[in-house]
Order: sequence, then structure tokens, then C-alpha cells
Amino acid sequence: MFKKILIANRGEIAVRIIRACKELGIGTVAVYSVPDKGSLHVALADEAICIGPANPKESYLNMQNLITAAKATMADAIHPGYGFLAENPAFAELCAQCNITFIGPNPDSIEQMGQKAVAREKMIKAQVPVVPGSSGIVEDIEEGIKIAKEIGFPVLIKATAGGGGKGMRVVQNLEEMEKAMELAKQEALNAFGNSGVYIEKFIEKPRHIEIQILADKHGNIVHLGERECSIQRRHQKLIEEAPSPIIDANLREKIGKTAVKAAKAVNYDSVGTIEFLLDSNNNFYFMEMNTRIQVEHPVTEMITGIDLIKEQIKVAYGLPLSFTQDDIKFTGWSIECRINAEDVSKNFMPTPGKIERLIIPGGYGVRIDSFVYQGYSILPFYDSMVGKIIVWAPNRVEAIKKMDRVLNEFVIEGVSTTIPLAIEILNHPKFVQGDYNTKFLEEEIL
Amino acid sequence: MFKKILIANRGEIAVRIIRACKELGIGTVAVYSVPDKGSLHVALADEAICIGPANPKESYLNMQNLITAAKATMADAIHPGYGFLAENPAFAELCAQCNITFIGPNPDSIEQMGQKAVAREKMIKAQVPVVPGSSGIVEDIEEGIKIAKEIGFPVLIKATAGGGGKGMRVVQNLEEMEKAMELAKQEALNAFGNSGVYIEKFIEKPRHIEIQILADKHGNIVHLGERECSIQRRHQKLIEEAPSPIIDANLREKIGKTAVKAAKAVNYDSVGTIEFLLDSNNNFYFMEMNTRIQVEHPVTEMITGIDLIKEQIKVAYGLPLSFTQDDIKFTGWSIECRINAEDVSKNFMPTPGKIERLIIPGGYGVRIDSFVYQGYSILPFYDSMVGKIIVWAPNRVEAIKKMDRVLNEFVIEGVSTTIPLAIEILNHPKFVQGDYNTKFLEEEIL
Repeated sequence: MFKKILIANRGEIAVRIIRACKELGIGTVAVYSVPDKGSLHVALADEAICIGPANPKESYLNMQNLITAAKATMADAIHPGYGFLAENPAFAELCAQCNITFIGPNPDSIEQMGQKAVAREKMIKAQVPVVPGSSGIVEDIEEGIKIAKEIGFPVLIKATAGGGGKGMRVVQNLEEMEKAMELAKQEALNAFGNSGVYIEKFIEKPRHIEIQILADKHGNIVHLGERECSIQRRHQKLIEEAPSPIIDANLREKIGKTAVKAAKAVNYDSVGTIEFLLDSNNNFYFMEMNTRIQVEHPVTEMITGIDLIKEQIKVAYGLPLSFTQDDIKFTGWSIECRINAEDVSKNFMPTPGKIERLIIPGGYGVRIDSFVYQGYSILPFYDSMVGKIIVWAPNRVEAIKKMDRVLNEFVIEGVSTTIPLAIEILNHPKFVQGDYNTKFLEEEIL
Repeated sequence: MFKKILIANRGEIAVRIIRACKELGIGTVAVYSVPDKGSLHVALADEAICIGPANPKESYLNMQNLITAAKATMADAIHPGYGFLAENPAFAELCAQCNITFIGPNPDSIEQMGQKAVAREKMIKAQVPVVPGSSGIVEDIEEGIKIAKEIGFPVLIKATAGGGGKGMRVVQNLEEMEKAMELAKQEALNAFGNSGVYIEKFIEKPRHIEIQILADKHGNIVHLGERECSIQRRHQKLIEEAPSPIIDANLREKIGKTAVKAAKAVNYDSVGTIEFLLDSNNNFYFMEMNTRIQVEHPVTEMITGIDLIKEQIKVAYGLPLSFTQDDIKFTGWSIECRINAEDVSKNFMPTPGKIERLIIPGGYGVRIDSFVYQGYSILPFYDSMVGKIIVWAPNRVEAIKKMDRVLNEFVIEGVSTTIPLAIEILNHPKFVQGDYNTKFLEEEIL
């Protein structure tokens, strides 16, 4: 097994990975930006190295500094977490060149899934259902108009280099099409350095359903069921659950098998997630693949008993999966709430600052993944998530009640958080009934 | 279901019960002694009533004050937790007389199991194996000597009103017997107001194995497997695990069925625990029954998925069990460490005082049941347990590593705790091999 892993990240995911390493008996190196010195991941790791100033470009995104830190500490692997360099094929490539194992998929998989138009074409070839639309990048406006007419409005123009909700534009009718194409290409160029766009039918009020994949380097691949992630604000997930209240065993098997097919099509060999849109008739369409561990991975762990970070590390080392698809059983229900230091009443403005008082709830079926403590100052430089509350219960009704109990019990003073919003969502009749889609938040709450 | 439950306890078990009530939609009343006002259970309950001064006799053991508090708040049930009045048949009786449901077994069950010599006779009649010895109370010294000769030395003289390790005396040979009997009877009279003693063969280096029982008021009764509780200091458990490293499915079924038989013999109708001694040949002997929820109940919850406090409340209300013995499945491994504010180097002297800094670990498979927070002052009046860490993992090796990780991560400043001792035990080769008995702590560690 690896002797030492450098964790090229911060916050709760860095803590999560350090914990997994400790339980596996692997040494850990934390990296931190100057203002992050007081963060918990720095205290928990065996070693810690400062890799630059607050600005992520100069620290957590600074490939050369990270490689140097790994070499200096003799780490034999780097775990990128999520965000930052987790889906950067050049970084994965650089690690390989420096004889450091990148704990993630091979760079080719990242590359293929990272270019969304390329991924879309791949999926079409692999007979994975995609939203009707262009077969790849749309070269000019005439072609765009032709496709839009074929599939019917509204359509979505998407940047091939986008993803995670970034670089998208809805077009309602033919009149808007020409201008929209021009703007979308320009925006894509500005945001991603790549003007390529493609077109999809715009699915109204879909559910966001994603399948957790786990693959080794020996061709073994399994899925671990779905996560329901439709509670979103501007494509940022707030509450996730597993299983989905709308998916039965048959549909689970169907989507699961499709996800495995999608991952196989790019020779996937790590943990990853295939995101699907589910329309109101339970048709599902490939949306994109996240070639990394996700924020919401714990809900899958809670219902399968499988530690995804440990598995990710093991397969990166080259070990074959120790179980098959048939071994994977789903038990009970899990819900995750992301707790963000944001002021909901001020348009979710981040609220960095010192946590003056903190009493984190516990008890049966309660898991806390966080990196903050009483006296910690939330920094303004990074994302505003301070932690995740994950609950498990035998069924959805009990899981909701447990989460409601935990959220109400949580004491955090000094900063505003999204806890009151989460309580409101959890107690909304439509959420309780499981009757919600990606428009829920804006239509029912905000 | 009950409208409101008064929790006649403090500390982590009061918090545990309040959480279960909240998740069941039941109102909660906390009671507290004057110095306990800042405790978490007071903050978490819907209502809180002061029931007297620090001295437990005047507050948590004050039956009349508790009944008055329940009446004043219109609570329809009282949960006694463990300790204090949990195994007091007079209190259970008093609750019934006042039309308040006592959340525990019927007073007769408590009474029969509370008198250890009576319980022993009951068990013999029910064909539950007991340690060879007297069939009930030993009236005089001649009878004691006769029995001791029959079963062979060493023998144990035990107070019928004792239990939990209190009121016991080991006798090594015939010469000591007469004096020992006299002293034991006198001690029993002083400690319990009852001079009755009985005699058992002294089993050397047994394992402490206990079976969790759950029974309703309709004659349904199941067991939830065993807990291994051999890591003890002076009969006080420190670390518990489920399952036991030494018990296989066959032995589990055999002991489990015996435990069910024992509980049936006293018409048991709540959660309870049958404690057994297991000798080095895997013979098991009834030791005593605890007619209440136990400190270590969480390890059973973790491997069965069953919330014992919720079940206890439901059966107390009169609901039938919603599952059968066949529905109960055991998954993975769970370990609990009790964290006591004690100075191990000073003979486990309690270390009350202010918690100056507290960072409680979390992550996958980690459960914290506690009632303290940063800034809380541990009181000198009550037991020194500040919380319990419970972990779950797919197997024992991973559970031990996880617990070790969590204990090492725990930050508590201002008071000494038993955390370093727990780490030492967890890493001891004999513990790791599962090769330990109730003498482990004194022989291997202290």
C-alpha cells in the first residue's frame, strides 16, 4: 500500500481523506495556504507544508508547488479531493511523469469526460441515452438553428468545456437563437478558453439523479446505486439523499447498468459519478460525468457500508475490487445537508468570520464531516461550506425527522449559516412527499 | 403515542433519550439539579424543571420531586435512563399509581431480577445455566461451608441486594470461610440494608458476555445478539464491542435463546440485558439481569440498525414489536469507548473542571453520544463519564483502527480523561487478537 499520501486540498474533504488514510495506516501530508494554517486538516495530518498565499491559483491550484511538496515529503501519491485540481488531466499527467500516483482515474478518462461535447459523442456511441441534441460541437449558427428546429424549443446551448452548471444558456425560440449562439460561444471562450458549444433539448423540471461508480484497474466495475440531488440553488446542491424517493429497484438496475456502460466507454478506473437528468416520465439522460469523489459521497456510504475514499485509494494503488455487484446491498435511507456559512436573506452572501460558539450534535445515525471548531475563523478566500451533516435511518420518514432534530440542535454562533433554510426545506410538504425536482428551491422556497 | 416524556436523568443518557423523543415527535421535559442547569440535556429538552440540590438523594433520586415535576408538566411517561431510579421497583410502582407510564419493565420483573438470590433460583427453575452454588440465600455459616465444599474453592459470596460488581467477596479456602461469611453479611447489611448472601463457584478469568433483550407487553420477545464487555476496571466497563470476538453464530444462537428464556421467566416486557459469564471452555452462566437500558447499548444499535431507545418507548406505550427474531441481522462490527474525566495515573481519580477546548472527531462510522461542550464544567457530584465514542466498520480490524484514529484525534483540554488508556488498550496485542477476559486490565495494563 502507499506509504504516504499528500492531500492536495483543504476543508472537510482534506479531513475526510486524512481520516481514511489514518485508518488504512498510510502517512499523510497536508498542504495549506498561508491563512489556512489554523485549519483542522493541518492539525490532523502527520506533516503539513505551506504551498503559497491565500489565492488558490498560487496555492491549491499551483501544480508545481504541490509536486514539490510531494517530492520534499516523499509522498508516493496525491489525493486531489474535489474541486481545485481534481479534474485536471494535466495535473494527473504531471503526477505520473513525476512518479507520483494520482488518486483518481487515468488522465484519458478525465480528458474525455471533461470535454462535454466529446463525452456526449462517446455516450451516443456507447448507446447511453443522452438528451436529444447535436452529436458533438456545433460549428456554426446555421447548424445550430437546424438542430434546434429538429428537437424543438426550448433548447440549451452548453459550453463543451463547462460542466457543473457553468456555461449554459436556455433559448426559448428561433428568434433568440442566433444571438444566443454568438453570446454562448463568446462566454465559453472567456470563461474556459474554448468557444466550443453544443446543443441539447431543454428538459423542464428534471430530477438530478446520479450513479456512484467504482472501478479498478483490472476491468472490474460496479455501481453503488443512485443519489437524488435535485435540491439545488443555481446548480449548487444543498441536500442530497440516497436512495431517491422516486427510483424503484427496476429503474435503479437500469440506470445503474447504463452508468457502468458509460464509465466503461472511457475505460474508467476510479470512483466517479455519472449524472443523469430524469424527466417526469422517468426517462433518464446522461448529463455529465464527474471524474472524482463528490461532496455528497457519504449518503452512498451510509446505505452500502462501503468507504468510498478507502476504495478509491485501494484501486489507485492497483488492488482489484474486493466485491462484486451482487455483493452490494442497500440498507435504509441517508440524507446529507451541506452547511454553508452564507446569509440566505442576503442572496446567499458568504459570511466569513469567527465561530464564537459551536455545539455539534451527535447520537445514533448522525455523521458529521467538517473541519471547523469553536474559535475557528471561516476564511473569505474559499468556498463557504463549513461541513456536512449526514444521517442514516431505516426509512425516509425517520431520516427526515432525524435530520430535522440534528439541524435544530446545531449551535453555531458568530456566522450566519444555511441551517434555517435546510430546516425549511426538510419540513416542506413536497419534500416530505419526495415530490420535488431541480426547480423546487426557486419555486417553493426562495 | 406518548405526548410528553419526563427524563428522570442527566448526562449523556438524558441527551440520548431527548433525541429519540424528538425524532418520534414526543415532547420532552428535562429535570436538573441546581448545579446541572448548564448541562446540554436542559438546553435540548422542550421544558426543564429544577428538582433539587446537587446531592442525588435530593434531586435525581427524589421520587416525590420527580413525580411532582411530571404532574406539573403534564408528562404522561417517565424515562429513568440508567442508574438513579432505573431499577427501583418502588419508583416504577409509584409511577403506575400516579398514572404515569414508567418506561421500563413491570415492577415485578425489576423486583425479581433485583434480588440476585431470587433471580438465581428463578433461573435454575427455568433451566438457565447458573454458576454452581447455593440455590438461594445461604442462611448460616454451616450451610455456606457445606456448599463451598461441594462446589470447591475458590468461591464467591455475593449479596442478594448487590449487583454490578457490588457486594462480592472471593474466598480462597475453607479456613477463610467462616470469617468471610460473617463479614459479607455485615457488609451487605450496611450497603444494601439486606444481609442476605448467596454462594457461587468463583470462575477465574471469565469473559463478560451479555445479551440484549427486547420484549413487548404482548408476549413477543427477541434478542439482539451479544455484547462483549470484558474490558473492565473493578467491574466498571471501559470498552465494549459487538459482536464478541469469541462467539460464533452457533454459540450466539444458544446464548441468545437462553437469554430469551431467562427474560420470559420473569415476564419481561421492555429492553433489558442478561449478563453471562463465559468460561475458557465457552460454558456460559447467568450472572444477573439489568432491567434497564445500558450504557453500552449503542454497539448493538450499530450492528442491527435498531434504535433501542425508540423501541423501549414504543413497547412501554403498548405497541407490539414490529419485527421478529428472524428479521434481526447483524452487519459489521462496533466498538464503544467510554470517556471518563479521570486521572488514570492517580488511581482513576475523577477530574471535574472546565473543558477549556474541545474538538470532537467525526467522519464515517463515528458516533458520539455526549453532553459536554467547550466551556462546560464537569461536575464533581455525579459519575465521571463525559461521553461515549462508538464506531462501526465492516469488520473488527477496521473498527479498531477507526477507534484508534478517533481517540487520537479527540482534543479535550482542561481535564484529564481516560483517552490515553483507551488507546493503550486498543493497541495491545491481546486486545487486537480478541484474546482477553475480565482480568485483562489489571493483568496487562495497570
